This record gives sequence, C-alpha cells and structure tokens, in this order.
Amino acid sequence: MKKVVTFGEVLMRIAPLGNRKLKQSNQLEYYFGGTEANVAISLAQFGNNTKHITAVSNDFVGDAVKSYLQKLGVDTGLIIDSYHPLGLYFLEVGAVMRSSTIAYNRSNSAFCHIDPDAINWEKALEDCDWFHWTGITPALSLNAYKALQKGLEIANQKGITISADPAYRSGLWNYGHKAKDILNQLVELSNVFIGGPNEINELLDTSFSYENEDFIQASKLLIQKYPNIKGVFDKTRVSLNASWHKIKARLWNGVDFYETNELEITHVVDRIGTGDAYAAGLIHGLMHYDNQKALQFANAACALKHTIEGDANLVSEAEVLHIIEGNLSGRIKR
Amino acid sequence: MKKVVTFGEVLMRIAPLGNRKLKQSNQLEYYFGGTEANVAISLAQFGNNTKHITAVSNDFVGDAVKSYLQKLGVDTGLIIDSYHPLGLYFLEVGAVMRSSTIAYNRSNSAFCHIDPDAINWEKALEDCDWFHWTGITPALSLNAYKALQKGLEIANQKGITISADPAYRSGLWNYGHKAKDILNQLVELSNVFIGGPNEINELLDTSFSYENEDFIQASKLLIQKYPNIKGVFDKTRVSLNASWHKIKARLWNGVDFYETNELEITHVVDRIGTGDAYAAGLIHGLMHYDNQKALQFANAACALKHTIEGDANLVSEAEVLHIIEGNLSGRIKR
Amino acid sequence: MKKVVTFGEVLMRIAPLGNRKLKQSNQLEYYFGGTEANVAISLAQFGNNTKHITAVSNDFVGDAVKSYLQKLGVDTGLIIDSYHPLGLYFLEVGAVMRSSTIAYNRSNSAFCHIDPDAINWEKALEDCDWFHWTGITPALSLNAYKALQKGLEIANQKGITISADPAYRSGLWNYGHKAKDILNQLVELSNVFIGGPNEINELLDTSFSYENEDFIQASKLLIQKYPNIKGVFDKTRVSLNASWHKIKARLWNGVDFYETNELEITHVVDRIGTGDAYAAGLIHGLMHYDNQKALQFANAACALKHTIEGDANLVSEAEVLHIIEGNLSGRIKR
Amino acid sequence: MKKVVTFGEVLMRIAPLGNRKLKQSNQLEYYFGGTEANVAISLAQFGNNTKHITAVSNDFVGDAVKSYLQKLGVDTGLIIDSYHPLGLYFLEVGAVMRSSTIAYNRSNSAFCHIDPDAINWEKALEDCDWFHWTGITPALSLNAYKALQKGLEIANQKGITISADPAYRSGLWNYGHKAKDILNQLVELSNVFIGGPNEINELLDTSFSYENEDFIQASKLLIQKYPNIKGVFDKTRVSLNASWHKIKARLWNGVDFYETNELEITHVVDRIGTGDAYAAGLIHGLMHYDNQKALQFANAACALKHTIEGDANLVSEAEVLHIIEGNLSGRIKR
Amino acid sequence: MKKVVTFGEVLMRIAPLGNRKLKQSNQLEYYFGGTEANVAISLAQFGNNTKHITAVSNDFVGDAVKSYLQKLGVDTGLIIDSYHPLGLYFLEVGAVMRSSTIAYNRSNSAFCHIDPDAINWEKALEDCDWFHWTGITPALSLNAYKALQKGLEIANQKGITISADPAYRSGLWNYGHKAKDILNQLVELSNVFIGGPNEINELLDTSFSYENEDFIQASKLLIQKYPNIKGVFDKTRVSLNASWHKIKARLWNGVDFYETNELEITHVVDRIGTGDAYAAGLIHGLMHYDNQKALQFANAACALKHTIEGDANLVSEAEVLHIIEGNLSGRIKR
Amino acid sequence: MKKVVTFGEVLMRIAPLGNRKLKQSNQLEYYFGGTEANVAISLAQFGNNTKHITAVSNDFVGDAVKSYLQKLGVDTGLIIDSYHPLGLYFLEVGAVMRSSTIAYNRSNSAFCHIDPDAINWEKALEDCDWFHWTGITPALSLNAYKALQKGLEIANQKGITISADPAYRSGLWNYGHKAKDILNQLVELSNVFIGGPNEINELLDTSFSYENEDFIQASKLLIQKYPNIKGVFDKTRVSLNASWHKIKARLWNGVDFYETNELEITHVVDRIGTGDAYAAGLIHGLMHYDNQKALQFANAACALKHTIEGDANLVSEAEVLHIIEGNLSGRIKR
Repeated sequence: MKKVVTFGEVLMRIAPLGNRKLKQSNQLEYYFGGTEANVAISLAQFGNNTKHITAVSNDFVGDAVKSYLQKLGVDTGLIIDSYHPLGLYFLEVGAVMRSSTIAYNRSNSAFCHIDPDAINWEKALEDCDWFHWTGITPALSLNAYKALQKGLEIANQKGITISADPAYRSGLWNYGHKAKDILNQLVELSNVFIGGPNEINELLDTSFSYENEDFIQASKLLIQKYPNIKGVFDKTRVSLNASWHKIKARLWNGVDFYETNELEITHVVDRIGTGDAYAAGLIHGLMHYDNQKALQFANAACALKHTIEGDANLVSEAEVLHIIEGNLSGRIKR
Repeated sequence: MKKVVTFGEVLMRIAPLGNRKLKQSNQLEYYFGGTEANVAISLAQFGNNTKHITAVSNDFVGDAVKSYLQKLGVDTGLIIDSYHPLGLYFLEVGAVMRSSTIAYNRSNSAFCHIDPDAINWEKALEDCDWFHWTGITPALSLNAYKALQKGLEIANQKGITISADPAYRSGLWNYGHKAKDILNQLVELSNVFIGGPNEINELLDTSFSYENEDFIQASKLLIQKYPNIKGVFDKTRVSLNASWHKIKARLWNGVDFYETNELEITHVVDRIGTGDAYAAGLIHGLMHYDNQKALQFANAACALKHTIEGDANLVSEAEVLHIIEGNLSGRIKR
Repeated sequence: MKKVVTFGEVLMRIAPLGNRKLKQSNQLEYYFGGTEANVAISLAQFGNNTKHITAVSNDFVGDAVKSYLQKLGVDTGLIIDSYHPLGLYFLEVGAVMRSSTIAYNRSNSAFCHIDPDAINWEKALEDCDWFHWTGITPALSLNAYKALQKGLEIANQKGITISADPAYRSGLWNYGHKAKDILNQLVELSNVFIGGPNEINELLDTSFSYENEDFIQASKLLIQKYPNIKGVFDKTRVSLNASWHKIKARLWNGVDFYETNELEITHVVDRIGTGDAYAAGLIHGLMHYDNQKALQFANAACALKHTIEGDANLVSEAEVLHIIEGNLSGRIKR
Repeated sequence: MKKVVTFGEVLMRIAPLGNRKLKQSNQLEYYFGGTEANVAISLAQFGNNTKHITAVSNDFVGDAVKSYLQKLGVDTGLIIDSYHPLGLYFLEVGAVMRSSTIAYNRSNSAFCHIDPDAINWEKALEDCDWFHWTGITPALSLNAYKALQKGLEIANQKGITISADPAYRSGLWNYGHKAKDILNQLVELSNVFIGGPNEINELLDTSFSYENEDFIQASKLLIQKYPNIKGVFDKTRVSLNASWHKIKARLWNGVDFYETNELEITHVVDRIGTGDAYAAGLIHGLMHYDNQKALQFANAACALKHTIEGDANLVSEAEVLHIIEGNLSGRIKR
Repeated sequence: MKKVVTFGEVLMRIAPLGNRKLKQSNQLEYYFGGTEANVAISLAQFGNNTKHITAVSNDFVGDAVKSYLQKLGVDTGLIIDSYHPLGLYFLEVGAVMRSSTIAYNRSNSAFCHIDPDAINWEKALEDCDWFHWTGITPALSLNAYKALQKGLEIANQKGITISADPAYRSGLWNYGHKAKDILNQLVELSNVFIGGPNEINELLDTSFSYENEDFIQASKLLIQKYPNIKGVFDKTRVSLNASWHKIKARLWNGVDFYETNELEITHVVDRIGTGDAYAAGLIHGLMHYDNQKALQFANAACALKHTIEGDANLVSEAEVLHIIEGNLSGRIKR
Repeated sequence: MKKVVTFGEVLMRIAPLGNRKLKQSNQLEYYFGGTEANVAISLAQFGNNTKHITAVSNDFVGDAVKSYLQKLGVDTGLIIDSYHPLGLYFLEVGAVMRSSTIAYNRSNSAFCHIDPDAINWEKALEDCDWFHWTGITPALSLNAYKALQKGLEIANQKGITISADPAYRSGLWNYGHKAKDILNQLVELSNVFIGGPNEINELLDTSFSYENEDFIQASKLLIQKYPNIKGVFDKTRVSLNASWHKIKARLWNGVDFYETNELEITHVVDRIGTGDAYAAGLIHGLMHYDNQKALQFANAACALKHTIEGDANLVSEAEVLHIIEGNLSGRIKR
C-alpha cells in the first residue's frame, strides 16, 4: 500500500439534473471535486493510502467536504478550517454540440486565503511515497502558490516522487504573477510531467504541434531543461461532440516513445474530472507497474471516468485492469 | 431589439421521468409548450422583445403559464383568462426504435373557446416587427381560426412581416372546415413560408417529392400563387431512430436555392419543439442577417434544441452563432 | 368475501411535491382518485371483492388508470374506453391556515360523455352484495346521471344493498337539472344514507343544525320520507386548521342514536379522500359487524386515511381494528 | 396599482431536502431570496407593480435570478451585471428544538461590489409610490451603503414614502463603520419604521423591554427624534419550538396603540422570510387600507408565509384577506 | 386470448438512479423482476391471460409484489405467502465499457424455501395453453427444483405446450445436484427450446461454436435426443459496449433454418430482462403467428425492451408489429 | 478524545419517501443503521474516536456500509467481509395513529454468519475506554453471541468500561437459547446498565411497574445481583401518537435517584434510533460529565434525534449542550 499526498482546493459542484439549465428546475445535485482531490479519491479507490491537504469553511459545508473525502477513503486529518467560504462552481451539462458551462465562485474561497504557515508539511509528508500537484493551485492566489512551493521543497528534500500536472487555465492567475515563471519554478522540483505539447509550449515558449513527432521533440526539450523529469505522459482526445469522445495516451520516458490503443466513449456520462482520472491512473500505474502498463492503466482509468457521475473516478483497480485486458463489451457482472 | 408577436395555444406537457411509461412511476415533470409560444420563448432568449397572445384557465394553472412565459422573457400582458381549463398533453418518451407517444387533452381548452373579440389586436401589434402563426391554431376551433384571421388582417394592414408555418395535423380540424381552404386563405396574408413539399402539396393538391429539384418547383408554384410570399424555408430530417437524427435546411427565395450543411444529433435529449426552434431561429435570422445566414442560424438553433429539455429552445444567440462558426466539439465553457 | 360494485369518475390528481405551489417547481406527483373509486380501493384493501365501473380515455392515461385500480385489487373488466380525455385535477396542498386549492379539468371528460347504454349492468351487478353511489356522479352530466339511474334500478331489482353519499357540490350541476330533484329520486332507491343535517337540508329544504338533537330529527324526517333508508350515518369534523383535525361519527338507525369517540389527527398528511375512507369503512363495517362497530370502524378508517398519501385509503382491516381497540400511540410494528 | 421599488442583495438559498443535513444526501433544492427582494415578490403577488434593484453575476446564475424575479412579476430591467459571483447561503432545516442553520457565502458577492454610480436612481424611482430598505444592505459593504444612501436621498426628494426595516445583524458590519451611526442616518430619511424595542434600543442606546408599555415609550422616543417617522410597526413572536410559533403585530402611530389577534402556526413549513412577508403585508396594507387593517393584513401575511416553501411569500391579497376575516380552518378550495 | 402460466422467483431490483454507484447517493428506485415473471408480464401486455406462481414474503414487500404483478395484468391468485424474506438484488448500472454490477440477496428467499406440495398445480394449469420455465428455478434450491418438476409433469399430462429457457448460471446450483443432470431431465419434458450452442453444449457436453452451421448441428443433435422438442430458438448479440448492442434471432425447427434481420440498439436504456422479452415475444409469436414471424416478433420485442426501464417489457403487441413492419425511425405518435 | 468500540450488525434501511407505502411509489431512500453502529456514529459526532466491528457482504453493498461509517467518522478497519448478504429492513413510515412498519431480511445475513474467531479483539480493544453492546446481537445467532461473549471477556480483562443495553426483542432469539440466560451472563460482565423495569423484569423474572419507586427497587435488586453494575439509566416515553412524543430520563446510581425534565417532541421527524441516541448521549456524558449532566445530555440527545432523518444521531456535542441549557425555541443559527 503506497501513500500519496495531494494538495489543492476542494470545490463543491452544484448542478441541475440531467441536461437542464439552472433556470429550468430548482432541483440540484452536488458533488465535491477539485483536480487534486479527485486524484486522491481515485488513488484511494485503487487501494492506496491517500491524504489530501486543503482549507475548507468552518461550517457544515466544510464539514460535508471532510465527510465526503472520508467516505471515499481519503485522510482529512490535516485539513484546515477557515472562516472563508468553500469555493464552488455551478454546472449546466451540455450534450452533443451544446457545451457544458461552468460558473465559478472561488476567488474568495477558504483555499485562496490559506495560510502557508498553517500547514504542517513535515507531518503531512511523513512516510509519503508520492506528492501530486497541478497548475490550478499556484494560479489561485499568492497564498496558495506559497503553500504549494513550501510543500514541494520539503517533498523534494524527503526524496518523494513528485508529479506535476501544470494545466494552464487562463481565467485564473489574477494576483499579479506570470503563470510561466511560477510553473517553470515548480516543474523544476518535479519528477513526472503530466502534459504534452500544449503545456510544454506554455512553459518553454515553443510552438510544438500535437503530432507524435512534435510531442517527442517537446518532451526531449523539456527533459533537457529539467533533467529531474523522468518521463512526459500525455493524453490526446478527439471530441466528436460533447457526448462522444475518443482518447489515447502517449509517453516519452527519455528514451522510448509509447502510445496506447484508442478507447472510444460513445455515450459520455460525465466529462468532468477525466483528466484527473488519467493522472490518478498514471500515478497508480507508475507506483505499481512498468511505464507502458502504467500508461495503459491511465488511459483506461480516464475512459472509465467518462461513465461515472461526479468529479472523481470511483472505479477499482480491478475494473481498470479488466479494460486493459480488452474487455470492452460491458457485460453485466453478477 | 425587434418586437415579435405570436398567437396560439399554450399546452402543459406532463411526462414521467426519463424513458419511463406513465404507469411505471407516479413522479412527473412538467413544462409548458405550444408551437407559437415556443417560438416566442426562443426569440426572447435571442434578445428580442416578444409578446404571446393566448387564453389560459383562470386558476393556478393559468397563473403558472404566465409565470413560465415571464420567467423566459415573454410579455404576458394581453393573455386572456378563461373559466375553461388549460389544454395539456401527456408524453411518454421513447428511445431508439421506440416512438415517443403523446396523449392530448385539448379539445375543450381555454384557447379553443377563445373569444375572437376579446383580443385587442391593435394594441397587441403596436410597434410590432414580426407576426408568426402556425397551422395548429386554425385547426383547433372556429373561434381560434377567427381570432387568428383577425390578427393576420390587422398585421397585414400594419405592414408587419408575417411568417406562416402551415403545419397540417390530421388529428385536429374537427370543427367542420377544410384545412386546405382555411390554410390557403391564411397563407395569402403571409410573407415567409416555413415548410416544404409536404406542406405545399397539402395546400396546392400537388405531389412533389422531397428532392431538392421538387422543392424548388413546389416553391416556385407557391410563390406564383401567393406572390406575397418572399421565401420558402424548409428543413429536412433523417431519423436513424428516435435517439439519433441528422438535419439540414434549404430555401428558395424566388431566385436562388441554398442548402446548409448537415448537423448530426447523435444523442437526442428532447425531440419536441425542434421545429419551433427552427422557426424561431429563422425569424431571428431574417430580422438580423441575410437569407443564407438566417437559414444556417435556423438549422443550428434546431440542432441545439435537441439537447435542451422541455418544449422551448433556451439557447442564446451566441450559442447558435458558435455552432454555425463550426464549433461542434462541445468543449466545456469555463 | 363480499362483492361490492361502485360507479363513478376516476380523476387523475396532479400535484407539486409537499406544500409547493405549482409555479414553484416543475416536479409533480400523481395519484388516481374519484370518490367512488376511492371507496372501491379501500374496500379491496379490507379484503372485499370490488369492481369499479367507469369510462377512461383510450390512451396510455386510461391504461394507467386500469393498472392503478388493478394494482390495488379492483376489478377493471367493465371499464369503458373513450376517445375523450380522462378528467383530472391539479392540487396545491396547503398547511395550517392556508387552504389546499384544486383546479379541475373534468367537464369534457371520458366519464361525462359516458354512454348509459354501454354499461352491462346485468353483468356488472351479478352476485353483487353492495352498490355504492355518490352525488358527484349525477352532478357531472346528463349521461352520467342516466347511467347511474339505470344501475340503481337494476341493483334495486336484484335486492342489492345500496349506499348513497349524496354529497352536494355547488360547482357542478351545470347541465340544466336541479340537484335536489335528482338526488331525491336517487336516494329513494337507496338503503343506507351517508350524510347528516347538511345533506338532508339540501334534499328536504330544511334547516337543521349540526347538533345531535337536530341530526336525530333530520334523520327521522328523512326515513319518514324514504322508508327504504335503514340508517343515517354522519361524520363531524372540527378543523383547528388544515393540519390538525378532530373527527367523530354518529348514526341514527331509526331507533337508536350512537356516537363514537373523537379521534384527533394532530398532523394531517393528506386530507383528500377522508370522506370516502369513512364511506368505505362504513360499508365494510355494515357488511361484517353490527351498526355501532361499523360506525367505529368507519371513523377509525377515516382517521387513518389522514395519514396516507394519495386519494384512497390503503390501510388494512387489521390496522383499523387495531385503532378501535384503542391503540393510538402509533408504536412501531416490527 | 401602486409602484414599489426595493433595493438589496439577492441570495441563492441552497438546501438539502426536508430536514436532512447537507452531508446526508447530495440532492439539493434552491430558491432565491434576500430580504428586500422577498418584499418585492410578495408585493407583486398582491398585485402591485414592483421593481427590484440589485447586482447579479454575469453568468447563468445571474440569469436565473432575473428569470426568477420575472416569473414572480418583479421588474428586473435595472439589475446590474457583475463579474463577481452571486451571494448565496446554504441551509439545513431544523425541527422542534433543533435550530435551522445557515452558512453564508456572500462577502465577495456581486452586490457587495456594486458601484453606487451604476444605478440610475432617477429612472428607477420614476412614478414610484413606495421605497423599501432594510438594515442588511448598509451592513454588507461601503458600496452597498453608499448606493442605498443615494437612493434614499433621491426618493426623499421625490416625496416617495420610505419604509425602513433596520434589522441589525451582528455577523455583518465588517467594513469599519458603526451600524448605529449609519442606521440612524438612514432612518432619518424614512417614514415608516418596521421594528420594535429591539431595533429602537439598537438605534437609541436604550433598553426598552418587549412589553407593550415599553413598546409605546420606545416608539414615542423614536418619533420624537425622527418626526419624519409616521408610525412604528412591530411584530412579536412566541416560538414554542422551531415547528410551532405564535405571532402578533402591534403599532404606534404617534397617537394610538393597536394590537392584532394572535395567529398560531402549529406546523411551520418554512420559517425563512416571514419577517419580509410581514413587511410586504404592511406596505401593501398601508398603501390600500387604514393602519389597523394594514397591521392585520401584515400579521396574516406573515402567518401564511410560514406555510409557503422558499424565501418569498407567494400568497395573493385574497388569501390574506380571507384570513383576517377569520377563516382559519384551512378548508379545501375547489 | 391465450392463457400462459409461469413459475419462478420474483426478485426486487433496487438501484441508485442513472449511472450512480450505490455509495454516491441515498436515492434508490425499485422494480420487480425475475426471469419467468418478466415473461408473464410481457405476455400480459401482449393481451394474453397470464398467471404467475411463486412464493413471496408475508409482509408489505410481498404485498407490493402482488400489487406490481396485478398492475401489469398478471394473475396473482396462487402466490404463496412465506415467513421468509423476498429475494432481491442491488444493481449499479454501467455505461460504455463499464459493466453493470449485480449483488444478490436471494439464497434464503421465500421462493428458495417454497414447499413443493403447497402449489395447487391442477388448478394452476386448468385451461392453460402454455407453460414456461427457465434454468434459474431448479438452480436455486431442491425445493424449487421439486416444485418445478411436479408442475412440468402435470403440464405434460395435460398436453400443455412447454417452453424451456435452460439458462445456466454458474453462481447458483449450490444445493448439491448437477445442473446438467437436472436440466436434461426437465428439457425432456419440454417442447420449445429457447437457447443455442451455449445452452446445448452445457446439456450435451458438446462444444459447438456460435456459427450458424454449428447452431444447426447442435439443434439437430438436441432434437435427436429429445424428439419432444419441436424447435430451437436462439438469439445472438453483438455488444459494442454496454450502451450499444446489435441483436439477431435464428431458429431451427427440425427442417429449416431461419434468421432475422439485425436490429441495432444505439442507446441502451435498460439491458436487464431483454432475454426474457425475447422469450415472451417468442411464446406470443408461436401462439399466434408462424415460426418465422414469431422469431421476428421475438427479436423486435427484445430490441424494444432495451428502451424500457425496469426488468419487464411493457410494450404492446402493436408496438412490436410496428417494428417488424420496418418502422425503425421512432417517429412521435400523437 | 475518548476511544469507544461497538460491535453489532449494520442493517440497510430502505424506505419509500415520506409517509408513502411501498406499493405507492418506486422511489426509495436508504440509510444504514443497526443499534450499535448508531451509537458509534453518534459518539463520533460528539468528537470521540470510535471503531465499529461487524461483518458485511463482500460486494458493493458492503463497500457502501464502510463508506457510510467512514463518512461519519467511524473507523472501519476491522470490519469483516463475508460472502453472505448484508442484513436489511424495509420501512413504511406511519404518522399520528398509524404505526410505522418494518419488514426484516436479516436472518441469513453476513453478521449472523460471523466467525467468532475472525475478530481480532485484542487489537480492536487496544487503548479503548469504553465498549458498548446491546441485546440485539446475542439474539441474532449463536455465532454472534459467541463473538460478543469473547469481546466482553477481553474487554473485562482490560478493565474497559462496558455498557449494556439488553433490549429484549421477542421476534429474534430463534437459535435455541433462552434470552434470559444469555443476557444475564452478559450483564454480569458489564458496568453500566441502560434500561429500566421492563428490561430488569426480563432478566430477573420480576414484575416491577414503570413508577419511579419501582424503578428504584428494580435497580437495587439488579445491582445487588450484579455488583459490577455501577448505575441503571432508564428513559421513559409518552407517545401521544406516532408524531408527538414526550421523553424523560432517570437514573439510580446505587445511592441516588435523579430524573431529568421532560422534553416534548411535537413534530417527530424520525423515530428510529432514538434509543441509540440516548445510549450514545449517556456514554458520552458518563465519559465527560457527572452522572446528572450525563443523564440530561442523554435525554437531550435522544430528543434531538427525533428531528434527524435516518437511523443515527448526527448532532454535535454543542447542539446537545445548547438544549440542556434550556434553548428549546429552535431559533435559526446564522
């Protein structure tokens, strides 16, 4: 049983049912999400020991966050209580050519106001095998960035493997620092890069295309600059429309290129959190299998997440392995 | 901001959830619909000033109709209260090869009993840019027909553009007049014809096929007979089954033929009201763009309606424009 | 096992959940009701063999009516299919001092259009022990009245006991006949009178008060006029408000007066159909017990109905007997 | 038809169903509220012409606010769109001795950031008969206070009647001004005081008790200080527990004391917004009846609100008049 | 109107809504199922007279089973009440490559404990045209096997046609007898074999493939061994994934091979009970049409079941005939 | 922070919504319960460290049990997985004089089949302060009894305080042992007796009444026989009906008698688990306060549970303390 620590904002997702618009019905459903928490939850379903560090409101909403994470097997012992509200987002779910739409309420959240000194990183990272971060966290606020930076430094000192998902979200980064500068600094502290040409272009001011050849060149350049990075793990997606996707994954480990089969999701149930499912699958894979199987596991985990409602991937390791063994017919299990 | 007036019955749609049959569950969901009201609602979402004329029951059901229309931005100031009940229909939603089924309760409705003299058409059509009617209204009752006729005459006198959607519904027309006679008379008062070979055959006793060549010939014949008609706007649909459709639109404006690309709806959410969405898109388009863009707008609006629950199309002008710019992948909007 | 036949309109009840107003939510719930059908359903729960005669729409709504009655043990073999829609009503449920409100849609219903000659009364009443009617039926339409009259005559010839619940509803009776004339004629064919001073005043143009003394005098006068009536069975209700009622029942059997204890319903769950529950309890009681126990059974059945959702009383004979044995504490049954 | 303008924050209320705690179920229901919007909505149900001024998020949540107000007959034409999120609160509904609990997320809301100069008060108050404000608005932010102050000054210049509900909420007032100073300044601009000893003590640093004698003395003192105040209208409540309340209202108009009967709410459906229902009832009453009937109307409106789900009172003028005529039995209306 | 008797366990299906996992939501939905009851229900929808024999718990759960069957037109007069609980299963519904999962609770059920002597087979099979059994029943318990055996013997004596669906479920058969021995014995008493190479291999220890040629050889061998078998009716399925299936049916009647067209279910609504829908369609077909039309009817009935929620097929004979006439577009029926 | 261990069956509660009967609606809601697990959950909400020992099915139902307990803060690390199904019960919720009804399915459950040797009691009871058991456990099966006995012996050896709630349930105890014999043996190992005359009469073959005097005599007799018992803690309940209760608690600690005030629950939300809430309140109280305050805490906790949906009490220590300080008005907490 491996121990993984994640750090990041937990958001409440609030949505009308089915494909309804908010103004069509006063019934709602909620889940909790947040990219790093989603990774922790998925890793817990795979049987790992996970702990999520975050800050939540000191009211029954924050209490519900802890309950939610505990329910799904994530340790909440180091979560910080704050008098600021929990960040949240509203979702209207699209279909076919109609996009899903998200309205955020997170800029004043408990997590944005997190006190970097309030986190006991030494205790948090004790006996830890893996630390995972994403580009959302440093994009939220100076406090969030400082807290993450501290965590990464200590994780680095402890020799913990660090995975970076430097997703760049242009709507964030409103506190006066440049995304590129900060992300470069944080990637330097990391060992596994989850991303591809798009993310590398953002970091290195390059303009690689989505072609495999470019992916390899971009990966080489990244590893050249950051030799601490042991592998670049990307996923590619073809969206016929909002309800029908095809996904594949590829890697460059510094020596070899490898690409998975394509998996086709003909009836998307929930698109949110599929990237986090990929990341969790990859981390689990890299902790337990070789690179290639890890990539297949990540791709299959990602595919399965499209059939799970809510932000986090709730499938087991056995269900993912079943897929990579080629069982795609979805036959009933009695 | 253009002002559009519509006239027609508002029906309550009552349906069990999902694909359940009525006898399977005592949970229901309701929406309000009615072809002309659907057009008004969609036009209001596109930013137009709309007013719907109808008659509703003078009880909390009629009150809910007004609330519904107001919620969606339609002016209800001239709606007539009646001691007759609101018309309604029950819906069982099919899937794949199973058809949806509708059971009507409308023959004794507030709207069928509408007093033609109770409508203040002069006030209703003040400053109005566009008046829209469909063949459902004159099919319902003599009163409804007389009321519509009066409205069309006054609209005509005021030089308001009139669109006709002379949909022929054989289950109606039970009050002793011939559909053909009355529809011909009303089309004569109109300027935009929303229909194709099917509707023209009904009016002119012809037998044109669905081929483009026939569509053009039929349109020519129609315009020859009714020179007031400035354009014939048709849509065509291929239904693989109840859950998967492909749609296209075409026009003959007296001089040119034009046809849109095909849009594919791989996962139909709600089929009802897609024709009304087309009509609303067309009217909006003709008020704001050229003929070709109007047709594309209409086709895209129609496609998007298949992803919206309920009878009326709740998408914005921006969402439709996004589609005709080729953005069909349904990528999440944050 | 006794066989009971009832005749009357089945109405669909459609209501928003809880105490919401229709315009507050598009979620609804439905039940089927109708005073005579409610009596049949309750009698079926008590273990009797019941058959309900009515007309329903020949669509999936009418199909759902039959399913509903069958589910609750009522024989639907003689129900007539009609191309007219099923009658229905919308309900907004009040609380405390806020009244529940009902909006009907029944004047054009399948039942109002029932063809008196379409009912095979001979077959319907074969081996029948009891026939029950209410004043709602003759109030609806000439057809409904004629059909009922015919049924009563044949039941009379067959010596079947007939109970009359001549509830006068002023909002009905719109087809040109006087309620009083028709109800008197139908009561003359009946043996058990379910009602009190209010109903007798309506029939006899008297003005008796609700006092027990007046109830006895009114009953005497009624039996004097209609010696076929063997007993007058009334219930009285004190409504503190819509959520808190107290009920009692009393009888005059031509010789003796008897009154039950008062039962207090401190938390009304559903007020609709409580009178029908009383009638069903009374009929069951008179078929199986003596007059006094029958009255207690009726009162307890009525009280229990206030705790059951929907129009019909779904409690068993054992549950009612439990109450009249004094078990009012509602202790959990494991 | 009177025209009333209100100004204040619209909050989204999000709550699990029934008495569930948030962590017990992921189903939610929402309503919109906010004390001044609640008053506008209730006044619209009474048949008045109402306009609400506020700021909402420029996303589908803000869009849903406008739809909601329009649905309930409130003019939304002057609502300001903001890139800040809508304020909201989560609610867990208690029962009996368990309190309901509220968790706010409003300190960074669109309304708190409202630009006082963005409101066209001249246009907003055109032809207006009544302007209503509460102490929540100046408690939220300097911007909100400044905007309100400006509105009150212009309303005063126009001779519009101004009602003040100076509710003091200790959890707010976090922007560095003293509640007492600001509320005194705003009461000075007002004509109708909605409050009693509690509110007056807050304003005048007095310590009057809840006794009628003290209420009269407090009112006298208030009117002495602010002769613009024409009447003091208070309501008193006895809470047996969260589910059972008794309410009464009283007034001092400068000359006379008057007190209503007590109304008993034996089964509270929704406690939120009952004070706003009282204010709306009072304003409607003072615009249409004499002082005493206005007070009775306010008390009855308040009582009825306890039976309505959601934040705003959706009863009609007729329903309130029905109560003050003594009809408390909640008999079904057919 | 043909009379059909079925015998087997009724199971309650309990499932979270949509594709949710049980731990994601505490909302559930239930249906009743069980392979033989599903056949009875479907045959009742086709207009046949059906009776189902089973044992249910003597509590409100067992009561609900009877209500459910009666609602759907199945005679419950010979159902046995037991002090053992009703069998049930929990279902998590998958999508795309994620399998649905079933968790059973049936090993101690009322049906497993059924007393073979408690069933009045003589009465049950009076005037019966067809008796249907499946391999689930003898797999459950010795009692269930003995009861079935007795029924088959009496049916055989009465010359009733017997259809066998010898589905082999390896998770059952825990009471010490070999499936093969018992199934062979029971097939010997039957006339119609519903199954193909898979089921025949199980019975005859052969290893035929799914190819048509092998199907024919297997069928020949079966009929050679059991000359009472008049036809072998198989269905084949291609599952692209859990949400997209293609089905076909084939038969060997001792002389000829026949195969239907393929029907494609592009959007599976509910996969459970589709085999039972095929069996019911086949039985109805064989009772009313020739072999080939019966097979087409069975295949179309099976296809339609994929669009119906719950375990049993609720479509009418007309709906199935509509499909085999080639109407696959799912056009709305008004 | 105290550590408490509980041992007993976890049952799934499945119920239709509101007061509906199972056959009225196919919507259900579930909670997990079981008397000892309810105690553990409530103690966790009060801030204690709790661990529950049980056996659950090794499927997604058992997985959901663990998630549920973890969500509510109970350690599930020693729960045993079994191939037997989880025990469950169906509930129909009554109101007023109508009783709630429970239908059990537990006689073949995972817990009944628990292997006494599979529990690592040494590890389970490490650092434990309190062990709680009830009479339900030894009533279920010989295995359950043996497992409990072993646990009690080890707890006794470790000097852990043991509370006994020897609730006698006559419907259980079907495995051939006498309840009285076994309960006496287990009470002998315990220190705190939760019960009163009823339970003592069962154990000692006495016939004490519910009067305080008798309670004291009974308690004295019990302590005389079992000097290890340090206190007898009883609660008394007056049920006006299923919706309105009054509760009080009393104790005899060997020296003194003490009785709490009566708390009135005028609107019962959920009656199930209120005894467990009392037990949990008592245990928490005895671990943290003196006897009298402990009793008040227990009574208030019990009262609050009546307002919480589901089997377990989810209120915090602060909420209970708030009640015993006399705050019964249920004022909203903002």
